[in-house]
Amino acid sequence: MKVAKFGGSSLASAEQVEKVVAIIESDPKRRFVVVSAPGKRSSDDQKVTDLLLAVCTRLCAQEEITDLIEEIYARYTAIAAPFGIEQVHLDRIWQSLAAFQTLPTQDNPHLYDTVLASGEDNNAKLIAGILQSRGLAARYMNPQELGLLVTDEPQNARILNKSYAKIAQWRDSPEILVIPGFFGYTEAGEICTFSRGGSDISGAIVAAGLQVELYENFTDVDGIFSAHPGYVHHPESIKEVTYREMRELSYAGFTVLHDEALMPSYHAKIPVVIKNTNNPSHPGTLITNQRDNLDQPVIGVASDEGFCMIYIRKYLMNREVGFTLRVLEIFREFDLNYEHMPSGIDDISIIMRSNQLNPVLEEELLRKIAYEIDPDELRMTHDLSMVVVVGEGMRQRVGITADSTAALARKNINLEMINQGSSEVSIMFGIHKEQEKAAVRTLYYTFFD
Amino acid sequence: MKVAKFGGSSLASAEQVEKVVAIIESDPKRRFVVVSAPGKRSSDDQKVTDLLLAVCTRLCAQEEITDLIEEIYARYTAIAAPFGIEQVHLDRIWQSLAAFQTLPTQDNPHLYDTVLASGEDNNAKLIAGILQSRGLAARYMNPQELGLLVTDEPQNARILNKSYAKIAQWRDSPEILVIPGFFGYTEAGEICTFSRGGSDISGAIVAAGLQVELYENFTDVDGIFSAHPGYVHHPESIKEVTYREMRELSYAGFTVLHDEALMPSYHAKIPVVIKNTNNPSHPGTLITNQRDNLDQPVIGVASDEGFCMIYIRKYLMNREVGFTLRVLEIFREFDLNYEHMPSGIDDISIIMRSNQLNPVLEEELLRKIAYEIDPDELRMTHDLSMVVVVGEGMRQRVGITADSTAALARKNINLEMINQGSSEVSIMFGIHKEQEKAAVRTLYYTFFD
Repeated sequence: MKVAKFGGSSLASAEQVEKVVAIIESDPKRRFVVVSAPGKRSSDDQKVTDLLLAVCTRLCAQEEITDLIEEIYARYTAIAAPFGIEQVHLDRIWQSLAAFQTLPTQDNPHLYDTVLASGEDNNAKLIAGILQSRGLAARYMNPQELGLLVTDEPQNARILNKSYAKIAQWRDSPEILVIPGFFGYTEAGEICTFSRGGSDISGAIVAAGLQVELYENFTDVDGIFSAHPGYVHHPESIKEVTYREMRELSYAGFTVLHDEALMPSYHAKIPVVIKNTNNPSHPGTLITNQRDNLDQPVIGVASDEGFCMIYIRKYLMNREVGFTLRVLEIFREFDLNYEHMPSGIDDISIIMRSNQLNPVLEEELLRKIAYEIDPDELRMTHDLSMVVVVGEGMRQRVGITADSTAALARKNINLEMINQGSSEVSIMFGIHKEQEKAAVRTLYYTFFD
Repeated sequence: MKVAKFGGSSLASAEQVEKVVAIIESDPKRRFVVVSAPGKRSSDDQKVTDLLLAVCTRLCAQEEITDLIEEIYARYTAIAAPFGIEQVHLDRIWQSLAAFQTLPTQDNPHLYDTVLASGEDNNAKLIAGILQSRGLAARYMNPQELGLLVTDEPQNARILNKSYAKIAQWRDSPEILVIPGFFGYTEAGEICTFSRGGSDISGAIVAAGLQVELYENFTDVDGIFSAHPGYVHHPESIKEVTYREMRELSYAGFTVLHDEALMPSYHAKIPVVIKNTNNPSHPGTLITNQRDNLDQPVIGVASDEGFCMIYIRKYLMNREVGFTLRVLEIFREFDLNYEHMPSGIDDISIIMRSNQLNPVLEEELLRKIAYEIDPDELRMTHDLSMVVVVGEGMRQRVGITADSTAALARKNINLEMINQGSSEVSIMFGIHKEQEKAAVRTLYYTFFD
């Protein structure tokens, strides 16, 4: 039994939906289908979700939305056209869109959630109708009926644990259930969405609740590459990766999946496969709790820019109990997150995402640290990138670090920071932004090819 | 103008004191002499300080101390013998020792301080007498008269800042002042000692107060070696080292000087030279705030054993604000210090000195972390050593890290941890204890020879 989740680009047009139908038909184990809203058909197209956002804006401004809901409805009918589905499905979609006119716009914390969720919800209705038109026993399944209960946090809902047991009751459903992604219901019956891009999390929740053998996540790429294709010419794609490796890769810019989306399947130990709707015979990338084949110690090289580093040095700092604690308390006071904190004997560096700071805040932060810590040296370095070499079982192999640093040295790439914890999974290098691409490239060619 | 401090082995016998006198005579800039108590004359000898400790124990047990104070007195008279000094100096020493009999032993928090400090104090009286017998204008200077005021913390005194201005008034003293190290006076006039080995700190305080050009610290070695002579055959000695480098080296087992002892000279920017009383023509090792000659990027390889590492992994840990803060608060609660805290995306390692833990405490700590953090993985690694490659300006040289890791890989030495912060001064490697010696050796031969 499998859960198959299809992303927006896989459902953008009738042509794409035809591929989705073929995928569902080809494997009788695909009993649960989770769908996103229709995505872009071309790079200058608009997603249904973007149109729905515009609806929200207009509703709040008390403006007319008829043209917008007609445009949205047209997206669904265009997809439906070649399949000759029953009109009742389309009528239900139209009614749902027309109902936006009657939504209260004052003091309605669920306005955005209700409007945006309709993109997925109506698409589930549509896809269920299309599957029926092909003679498959399929039906639309509302998340409330399914038992997908969430916290009442508009646009940032979290799953309630009791949902899993409720969802489990649908294991033996005689029909293929088509479930809209991206949202659930509060216990009071309100719609609440996950953070944006959250259809992946719906799929993971359903997979965990049903304890399926596999969660298939269909996208428009052949899985995950071992390096950024913009940096490395035709990088290898990864056959199998562990959740831990995936996390390290996604941290540094591998954005095929929201990493938080994998939490439910990670905890339920359900393997996930990333596959390509446009190339379904490609095996894709399998994400598992553990992988046995460790022949290749390095599985990927990832990178991300936009970091900065605060350097604090104070003679005999090491002897001061609670020193780091004070620094972190300042960070909490400023509501800042740090990423890493390598330390010497008398110095410490705090690496953080630059987008949390602006020049005013940065000055305040440094002034606070100067006042509270009274350091001998305090310095901010901007424009850092993090480059991560990832692979389970790197620990088994002496010399991965040596090979990495030698490769970087040969290219005259200076290391601002190295972070190799007890992690068996990664080594991280902090380097200047301008050298990021060169670093990724040289590290990739060190471990691949 | 210079402060010259002589350690216990430099003052252990008449023969040694003869060398000290020659050193003082040879440079008219040596106007301030700080002395330790007489040390061991051979490896099976007792230091005067050890005899004084025995005096304390006996006093507390209400036991007879006559034989002990006679033995101590005999040490001073043996040193004095060849110099033919005036008897008055020796009489004063005897009176000071005899006065122990009248010290209150109940409710006297300064008992140990008073008795132990006499080792240095009487030696200063003796050396002053010896210098006079050679026709030098020298006099014994009591720390109270000098203005060396400390906090009232028995056996753990800290300098009071006002001392520096008081000491400065003695700059133009017409006589060579011979000052006992190791202790000062509280504002109430009580004797309080620094932590043991603290004569070095007296020297640094006097040097800082007088703003001398150089603080000479005379020991029994030709300065600081670039690696442990027990690990590397005839390691090079270091000509010049910065305070920062010195700190990193002393952290990992280079124990020529108490690193805290250097605090006053560090802040006053006074250079310190470590010299050998037995080989005074050797230039020794100069410790400065900044050094200009960075031709050799690595200055030393140090190591220390006795570390352990707690590994904590939790999926999406990185997203939890305040996670590290919680871990550190647990450490504070247990009154534990950590040394380093390298982190991955979802994991963190806390490296600490093992001697802070025992099996019971360790279990309590791990249980507390498990309860508060609820990690996916929690693990303790024992028997780690830290190996540090130290050198200012390593940052200028791409490839030090590469050369280091390559050397370790060639010897099949596995890295549990690498810590290269923004520190320009060091890279630290965490390795298993059994590989420590091999690691130091291969790193030394990579950068020296």
